Amino acid sequence: MTKDVKTREDALVEQFRRVPSVADLRHGALQVAIGDDAAVWRPRAAHETILTCDWFLEGTHFLVDRHPPESIGWKCLARAISDVAAMGAEPRCFLLSLALPAARTTDWLRKFLHGLKRASRALRCPIAGGDTTRRAEIVINVTVLGECKRRHAILRSGARPKDTIFVTGRLGEAEYGLRLLQRAPKLVDARDMRMRKHLFPEPRVAAGLWLSKHKFATAMIDLSDGLSTDLLRLCKASRVGARVQEALLPRVKIAAGDREKKFEPTQFALHGGDDYELLFTIAPRDVARIPKTIGGVTVTPIGEITSQRDIALEVEQGRAKILKNKGWDPF
Amino acid sequence: MTKDVKTREDALVEQFRRVPSVADLRHGALQVAIGDDAAVWRPRAAHETILTCDWFLEGTHFLVDRHPPESIGWKCLARAISDVAAMGAEPRCFLLSLALPAARTTDWLRKFLHGLKRASRALRCPIAGGDTTRRAEIVINVTVLGECKRRHAILRSGARPKDTIFVTGRLGEAEYGLRLLQRAPKLVDARDMRMRKHLFPEPRVAAGLWLSKHKFATAMIDLSDGLSTDLLRLCKASRVGARVQEALLPRVKIAAGDREKKFEPTQFALHGGDDYELLFTIAPRDVARIPKTIGGVTVTPIGEITSQRDIALEVEQGRAKILKNKGWDPF
Repeated sequence: MTKDVKTREDALVEQFRRVPSVADLRHGALQVAIGDDAAVWRPRAAHETILTCDWFLEGTHFLVDRHPPESIGWKCLARAISDVAAMGAEPRCFLLSLALPAARTTDWLRKFLHGLKRASRALRCPIAGGDTTRRAEIVINVTVLGECKRRHAILRSGARPKDTIFVTGRLGEAEYGLRLLQRAPKLVDARDMRMRKHLFPEPRVAAGLWLSKHKFATAMIDLSDGLSTDLLRLCKASRVGARVQEALLPRVKIAAGDREKKFEPTQFALHGGDDYELLFTIAPRDVARIPKTIGGVTVTPIGEITSQRDIALEVEQGRAKILKNKGWDPF
Repeated sequence: MTKDVKTREDALVEQFRRVPSVADLRHGALQVAIGDDAAVWRPRAAHETILTCDWFLEGTHFLVDRHPPESIGWKCLARAISDVAAMGAEPRCFLLSLALPAARTTDWLRKFLHGLKRASRALRCPIAGGDTTRRAEIVINVTVLGECKRRHAILRSGARPKDTIFVTGRLGEAEYGLRLLQRAPKLVDARDMRMRKHLFPEPRVAAGLWLSKHKFATAMIDLSDGLSTDLLRLCKASRVGARVQEALLPRVKIAAGDREKKFEPTQFALHGGDDYELLFTIAPRDVARIPKTIGGVTVTPIGEITSQRDIALEVEQGRAKILKNKGWDPF
């Protein structure tokens, strides 16, 4: 009888169980995961819960005829976890809402879950639950719960004039990958290293945790929509401005074979989205305490917070222009 | 400058702030809500966190030319909260992911948020965050966090043979409303009482809390996809079967003017979805302790758990047939 009573939706939800869960990760906080009305999760004492949700939509955030399903599985979780990293918190579990065409419920779904499972393991974030339904196009929503010690979350609103602005990693690498993918005639090779950052971004969880543990950062945001958009968001929340030194930007390196394509590393670094690096600000007294790498990733000072309420880009010594917000905006 | 730097997405997110939040509900648990990378929420000591997410999609779950936007706003939250009620827990906050066409960002959105706000207040569940983007059709995902005391969550898996099966309210009322809505030529009147249960369902939070507080229920599920589907789910999770007395089912009352429409209250009660009533099981020793109403809603015994591993529907004294699963399945 058991088999008969299962709806096809229930059968699909069963597949989620193969994503690492409680037992796999020896993670005692999930009391009940998939299979009940809701999940039951036990928070740590003296911690706060971090909550975020993120759309990942066919046509808007990925192209089903270009992006390998493994990349879509990895990235839908990684980008949601990046918001948790940007608070200086640790990811703890996630919920997956997946709507997809019946034709995608076999091979495509298997590869998608493979990528999701890899991200779940690598980022130590087990699945707690989800919802599935049918839809003409693939529509994904991921909710992540994270945790940090009470009053240790790093907000966007704490930056003060004279704070130094740092970023992790290199900027524009994901944009470079996206441009290559857009020129590809078909599904791209998931192993192409030039597209690695676009296909399999790595949220900077360890760097964020280090910063919240030491209470060094006055403000932090993740670079999801591009430096020009996200730095403005941080400045707006902190009621300050910024002056960025173009020469200091850690920029994407274009592979030799792609140099004739007129890619502009500086434009990619300023306006390219999807890098999921962290941007954070450090008060003058603490700047000397910031090492060259944090949690295995390089950190680079790129400018200073000002009281001007705009973003200036210093293109050469003493000459600056206003940096316009050209990052990603869905509307 | 502030106005210029805002993307249109940011402007949309600003509107979410008008949904009741921290201050409105004097609800101290949300430390940071909309406007940062993620929300920060403080869990209660000695409690567990309940997590659930729910799709609500144009064309699948609602029709934009029939359902009033106020109903869509109310229902997307109410139905997600029903999963929290089904665990015997209390809703604490929610995240709204909303993708919609640019043409829906003015009047439609205002009315949608009005309905959402009413639900948020009535169900005491403030908004903690969200994500918005553009989409050709309206796509909604709601995540709800709830809380209950440690080890008090009521699972689907605890039902035992000889337990009595109870349901809250009347079954089939939402199906009745849906059928009327499907016959309507245009947007229906949000005040039509015959459609009230379909348009503005009320999750049984108080009844669920009462049951978990007294530790009476051995298992519980909410009736979202219809009695025939959801009772099977509970039985499967508990590895038991059930025998339901058709004569005992609390059924929808069809209004005098609709009697010629050949609506079948029993079929609506057995297979109609969207009622969001609770179904729970009570051990023989506790049956006498269950009052006639709990949390303001009537509760009715409808049958008994068996060891048969199927669902029998007793249509008259001693004569039963196997109840087939005809509820909602998106695939």
